Amino acid sequence: MTINEKALELHKEWAGKLSTASKCEIKSREQLALAYTPGVSEPCKEINKNPEDAYKYTIKSNTVAVVSDGSAVLGLGNIGALAAMPVMEGKAVLFKEFSGVNAFPICLDTQDTEEIIKTVVNIAPAFGGINLEDISAPRCFEIETRLNELLDIPVFHDDQHGTAIVVLAGIINGLKITGKSKETCKVVLNGAGSAGIAITKLLLTYGFKNVTMCDRFGIINKDYEGLNWMQQSMTEVTNLEGKTGTLADALVGADIFVGVSAPGIVSPEMVKSMNSDSIIFAMANPVPEIMPDVARAAGARIVGTGRSDFPNQVNNVVAFPGIFKGALEGRASIITEKMKLAAANAIAGLVPDDELNDENILPEAFDPRVSDVVSRAVMDNIEADGTNRK
Amino acid sequence: MTINEKALELHKEWAGKLSTASKCEIKSREQLALAYTPGVSEPCKEINKNPEDAYKYTIKSNTVAVVSDGSAVLGLGNIGALAAMPVMEGKAVLFKEFSGVNAFPICLDTQDTEEIIKTVVNIAPAFGGINLEDISAPRCFEIETRLNELLDIPVFHDDQHGTAIVVLAGIINGLKITGKSKETCKVVLNGAGSAGIAITKLLLTYGFKNVTMCDRFGIINKDYEGLNWMQQSMTEVTNLEGKTGTLADALVGADIFVGVSAPGIVSPEMVKSMNSDSIIFAMANPVPEIMPDVARAAGARIVGTGRSDFPNQVNNVVAFPGIFKGALEGRASIITEKMKLAAANAIAGLVPDDELNDENILPEAFDPRVSDVVSRAVMDNIEADGTNRK
Repeated sequence: MTINEKALELHKEWAGKLSTASKCEIKSREQLALAYTPGVSEPCKEINKNPEDAYKYTIKSNTVAVVSDGSAVLGLGNIGALAAMPVMEGKAVLFKEFSGVNAFPICLDTQDTEEIIKTVVNIAPAFGGINLEDISAPRCFEIETRLNELLDIPVFHDDQHGTAIVVLAGIINGLKITGKSKETCKVVLNGAGSAGIAITKLLLTYGFKNVTMCDRFGIINKDYEGLNWMQQSMTEVTNLEGKTGTLADALVGADIFVGVSAPGIVSPEMVKSMNSDSIIFAMANPVPEIMPDVARAAGARIVGTGRSDFPNQVNNVVAFPGIFKGALEGRASIITEKMKLAAANAIAGLVPDDELNDENILPEAFDPRVSDVVSRAVMDNIEADGTNRK
Repeated sequence: MTINEKALELHKEWAGKLSTASKCEIKSREQLALAYTPGVSEPCKEINKNPEDAYKYTIKSNTVAVVSDGSAVLGLGNIGALAAMPVMEGKAVLFKEFSGVNAFPICLDTQDTEEIIKTVVNIAPAFGGINLEDISAPRCFEIETRLNELLDIPVFHDDQHGTAIVVLAGIINGLKITGKSKETCKVVLNGAGSAGIAITKLLLTYGFKNVTMCDRFGIINKDYEGLNWMQQSMTEVTNLEGKTGTLADALVGADIFVGVSAPGIVSPEMVKSMNSDSIIFAMANPVPEIMPDVARAAGARIVGTGRSDFPNQVNNVVAFPGIFKGALEGRASIITEKMKLAAANAIAGLVPDDELNDENILPEAFDPRVSDVVSRAVMDNIEADGTNRK
């Protein structure tokens, strides 16, 4: 039985990967009177007097909505809300298993930006955070930005920032190994969707100076036609030299390649044209932009992929559970760039210097320390940023 | 410590009465690959091909949304979505504890009818049913009706129908004890809100011919001013004699009184003016329209209240968990009048004839048979009605 066949069998057996559970026993009239009427009136009245008490008496303190409109699901594309359910349930399960945070799938039967925003605002009272998932670009940028403005709970598009944080963590350790510096490194990123843009932004925030974005037609610059508004805004801060040409042109003399694009689009020749000690994140799934052994044979020093069967897996599961755990425990109203950088540094820091090597730049997904370390890093920066709402 | 003080303490300790739980273990890369990427793609693709497969592979098969806008919460009134959370969490807990159905609170930060409808439609994919709760009349009528038209999953306003079903169950047994017949009984109902109207409708559907509704200003008739559209429509089917006057006038010669109104508004004299073997449901909470001992002393034969510390408690918990369980298991697209009558008969039937007496007309809330018996009754009538979507 293949893994896909087994997965389908198991999904049928589970008939839903998530369930709800009661934290209070209700086996007697007295228990019923305490958890429900008439006793339940008391916390209602307290929250009515002071809305912040919702964090004291309800699931808001530890519950996240996993929100998707099913418009960009894994490699499956726009399959809609209902067909996206297994992914969103899976994400909710990962929240619980990796950080103890309750999460519930909210799959939206609309792909209209305004309706999505309105709907999420309307259902926000039950939740302490909103994890956006698998929403296509460029709508995802507007939805996230607007929701963060409208809501006093953090809204975080994991496809963007989760990926960006883990890639940055890997790059931080890659720099340590190669002795290169962020100020002088030449970075080329291929794939100008939600993840590509978020990675680029976070690398710039971290301090990289020279980042060039490409898409399937080549190097993105100010004269490039057909860019969406977010890609257009990226031309102000990337490719400052105004280069033109193909991905191959961009890679000549580059130090770091980050691919969130398509299988096999990087050739050994392109890797050979890069600087020595090059770092490659080839994250197309399931087939990377270049296979790790091929990249290494062509001279790449460090290669990461999205796959668990190769070294240096970029897996969001080391980021989002801890990030929301920290945001909820610290009651952040927003997840700032500073918190993202702190999370990346914390993830990188989980690989001690004496264990750091070309094939070990990121902690393992099941490393039990990860979510606590990441949540602590997030919480510390809530305080520093004054974004704590308590 | 009073029950209210204890309830507040416990709510603080629980910090949310609900949690989510994973049905699949994720402790290894293989388990991760089966429950999440890449394996999760398989059920997604199946649902994309055939939307009904969502019932096979996701929580939709066994999960209900508990939806409220917080506009009419218990005796607290319009306290809004956030302050309503403890009640909706409690309701979700009752679903789980009494019938094994997963339920999740959706508290809506809007009280606009159109926005509520739109929001619930948008979030429907994850759910197999919608339980509306504590939404004020007459908006609740339109919201429920429109949602049932728009969605292919059942939408059920428990404050209306749950209460109506349990009251009818009690009345069915009350008729058995008193030997009265539904065709000739004179019924007076006080309180023309959502519960009062739903009870009246269900009694008429069951076969009562003579029902008079009152509100705080007296008997409702066609000339009564200030009625909302739903109350207006009730004047076509109630008070066919066109009576006018006060509640006291209405009760003269009545056989059954149903109160969903205000504390103490029924006097012993009013009870004395009723027919012999009168049946009284005084469900104002926490203080009934008339106290049971006072009503009995004035001649009432059977008295039910909403309280667990008196005999004959009308408690929705004997209805809604089983109703949704049956609707989900039978995959009903709507909960019909026929299913409601079947549920009421099933609840009434749980008190065997030899145990039936003036102080025992309804099964106990914790009777472990209730939800199975009710869900079976609902399922049987899904098939009969052709409302089964499978």
